[in-house]
Amino acid sequence: MLKQCLSSATRLASRHISREQILNKLEHVLGSRNVISDPVDTAPFNVDWKGMHRTRSAGEENRNEQSIVVTPRGTEETVALMRLCHQYRIPVCSQGGNTGLVGGSVPMTSNELIVSFSKMNQIVWVDEESSVVSVQSGCILQHLDNTINSVGLCVPLDLAAKGLCQIGGNVATNAGGVRLFKYGSLRENVLGMEVVTADGSLLDLGKSVRKDNTGLSLKQLFIGSEGTLGLIMNVNILCPVKPTSRSVLLLELSSFANVVKALRLSRTSLGGHLSAFELIDKDALTVVVEHFGYKVPLDMKEQFYVLVEVSGNGDEIGATDRFMGDVLRGRLAVNGVAGSDESQCEHIWAIRENITQSLASTGANYKFDISLPLPKYYKLAEHIRSKWKDRVKHIVAYGHVADGNIHLNIVDHQMNPVNQREISSDIYKFAIQNNGSISAEHGIGREKVDYMSQIHSPPVLELMKSVKQTLDPLMLLNRGKVLNLL
Amino acid sequence: MLKQCLSSATRLASRHISREQILNKLEHVLGSRNVISDPVDTAPFNVDWKGMHRTRSAGEENRNEQSIVVTPRGTEETVALMRLCHQYRIPVCSQGGNTGLVGGSVPMTSNELIVSFSKMNQIVWVDEESSVVSVQSGCILQHLDNTINSVGLCVPLDLAAKGLCQIGGNVATNAGGVRLFKYGSLRENVLGMEVVTADGSLLDLGKSVRKDNTGLSLKQLFIGSEGTLGLIMNVNILCPVKPTSRSVLLLELSSFANVVKALRLSRTSLGGHLSAFELIDKDALTVVVEHFGYKVPLDMKEQFYVLVEVSGNGDEIGATDRFMGDVLRGRLAVNGVAGSDESQCEHIWAIRENITQSLASTGANYKFDISLPLPKYYKLAEHIRSKWKDRVKHIVAYGHVADGNIHLNIVDHQMNPVNQREISSDIYKFAIQNNGSISAEHGIGREKVDYMSQIHSPPVLELMKSVKQTLDPLMLLNRGKVLNLL
Repeated sequence: MLKQCLSSATRLASRHISREQILNKLEHVLGSRNVISDPVDTAPFNVDWKGMHRTRSAGEENRNEQSIVVTPRGTEETVALMRLCHQYRIPVCSQGGNTGLVGGSVPMTSNELIVSFSKMNQIVWVDEESSVVSVQSGCILQHLDNTINSVGLCVPLDLAAKGLCQIGGNVATNAGGVRLFKYGSLRENVLGMEVVTADGSLLDLGKSVRKDNTGLSLKQLFIGSEGTLGLIMNVNILCPVKPTSRSVLLLELSSFANVVKALRLSRTSLGGHLSAFELIDKDALTVVVEHFGYKVPLDMKEQFYVLVEVSGNGDEIGATDRFMGDVLRGRLAVNGVAGSDESQCEHIWAIRENITQSLASTGANYKFDISLPLPKYYKLAEHIRSKWKDRVKHIVAYGHVADGNIHLNIVDHQMNPVNQREISSDIYKFAIQNNGSISAEHGIGREKVDYMSQIHSPPVLELMKSVKQTLDPLMLLNRGKVLNLL
Repeated sequence: MLKQCLSSATRLASRHISREQILNKLEHVLGSRNVISDPVDTAPFNVDWKGMHRTRSAGEENRNEQSIVVTPRGTEETVALMRLCHQYRIPVCSQGGNTGLVGGSVPMTSNELIVSFSKMNQIVWVDEESSVVSVQSGCILQHLDNTINSVGLCVPLDLAAKGLCQIGGNVATNAGGVRLFKYGSLRENVLGMEVVTADGSLLDLGKSVRKDNTGLSLKQLFIGSEGTLGLIMNVNILCPVKPTSRSVLLLELSSFANVVKALRLSRTSLGGHLSAFELIDKDALTVVVEHFGYKVPLDMKEQFYVLVEVSGNGDEIGATDRFMGDVLRGRLAVNGVAGSDESQCEHIWAIRENITQSLASTGANYKFDISLPLPKYYKLAEHIRSKWKDRVKHIVAYGHVADGNIHLNIVDHQMNPVNQREISSDIYKFAIQNNGSISAEHGIGREKVDYMSQIHSPPVLELMKSVKQTLDPLMLLNRGKVLNLL
């Protein structure tokens, strides 16, 4: 049944309607100001943030053709838009802030329409008592956070792209980031949403309460589906009370076993105040220090550095001091520094946050986003170093160790697709063999589609395809992403 | 397509195979010790915990016929069992500890086979470093908690039925309870699972890492699906570090507005140490006090009482004292007591935990499990009181106010189905109109099936049915529960 429907979708694709006709129909539904077709204006939508993925022209005869971009202003317009796309079999690529790291938000070919959510950027309401906000999908994460900070709340999500990424894209990709450890993932904190499906139906999954056990939790299907099942409209998010103070420590440790012990001690003694526990290995730290000329008041003789953030309401300071004392007395860390004021805290965080930029300046980067059980976490870096250290420039490891998430980055002397492919294969093989994940937080997009058959068993893949088939039988949404069905 | 398949399922049901033949085939697959058919032995499996729901005989000629019970000992046997059931169209009702509150674990009719997980009760492994345990679905919650307590961890779930309920049932019903506020729901903490589907396929959704964005999160479909989509086998659960100390307060407040303000203050000043914030209204407190002869060292003049639990590692004591001082100085509470040692803490908790038992002793209980945004939370109780207070014995409200979850209980002079129906209708109408949930944590089971069309829009219900159809086209699993499709 699946195959039959796929071939009919392929057959029906775009239904022999010209680009000009499509433009006219789109302008009729959305108004001409919300339909962008000039190549100068559509260019930024047709290439991803890393500059690696571009929209390919759909036809040989027009090599520079790009996808049309539309900017609906709300749910009603999106419903009308999707009905039109469904009627004329126009494939759709939904795009939030276009900050994804796996090429998921750029069309494969120019016959896909880009639906940008940039004009759906309103905060609909804030329920301060329940700590819930309702927000349109195009709202920028930083804007939402700033707005609710003023009433003492914060978004349970924080990531490097916060100034550009949009809530809808965050939800569609189940984005992680540095606050996940403390506040949980979007799967916990997204209370409800509206979704427009491929045929223009509106699914009201719009609860704004934390607990709701009334049948299948369909919203969970859309969280992390990367736009392949529907277009996310309004989202209701549970937002924690914003801590009013924080302390940040940087510890120097001699073994990964001690990193794990220090993590356990921090969870025991800091409990709910612990808000980040980030690993930076010596190779990563060295690159940042050399690139930015940072002064790190530590000997930098050991292999492991851990940033510990403790946040609260002033009460956490005593506990943080005691933790630091315990870590040093127990010889889990050989040394440590504490940020004594906010600017020092920021300075310590800047080391962690500038790793990516520092690495980018030193050579060609192959970046990996792996989850592993902690007993295998750093063994991945050792395994890759044992094979590759003499053939590349740097192998650095850092990441959200408290979540089992390691960002392993390899810096090559220059971009070498053969090396990249071989290294990817080595890393993914290690992750799969050790019950880890080859994409902890970045998703599959188009970059990792080919690995899906290695990481999921045939019945699991079949079920994913069946769900896709149920929601999008004409395969209109985000073609070639996550599951390559065409 | 759905209708067509349903009628074929009905037509094919049980495929004209006799009970004797079924028994023989089951014994062949599972061994005779794992097939229970004697009515004395099967009786407890064929009635629910409340004694309200019983298996109906499938045939007129045999009014006392009960469902056969099987106890597979692992995944392999369950696969073989489901292949057999699929081949002969034998419908299946999966049963954990049979402690559910909506009749979900008892078959509708005796031609359904009861699959009990009681012999799949092993803790498979504990990864102390990653704080993850892998456990078979029949493991009893209390047993798991006790076992991992010894290595300093705890299960992120705690509920009254913990001595009887099983992990698989907890996951299948997305059980909530008192720790949800601090640690998040099972949707956050179940990292992976194995599922056997209606046709005997094995779905390996068995990751043991916290972050994994590799395609649709199929495990989320099974969490909270109440056994209608598949049988849950091994489950990997992220477990928090067990706090080593706690403080418990009981506050007396004069208005619900002050309850909300005190909640906000507790979240601000206690942050991650806050582990419970439970409301008990005066009507609920009075029933407990009268029933047990408890002494509550408060005036009991006000309408609202709040139990606040703060847990940590000793560090929370100072913060708790400060919170109590702030609450009283700010006149949010008119009075308050603090448990100064563990036995006093337990005494305060006993008030909260014994409400159900006290209510049961005073009359016929109509119990409700509602979620509401906080601005509407207590208005529900006021609304129902305004209409019903002269016609019933007690109307009491208590619950996990920090999660927006209110347990509204009406005690009638005697069981009166007309009252019960009308009160249900009033309460559910209020919840639906105010964007709440008519089942916060108990699920739909068979009790609330008829309300599904009131709480979900037609496209949402259609999608739930399509997912069910995809996974269980012959409608073999937990018939008549959640979605009544036959």
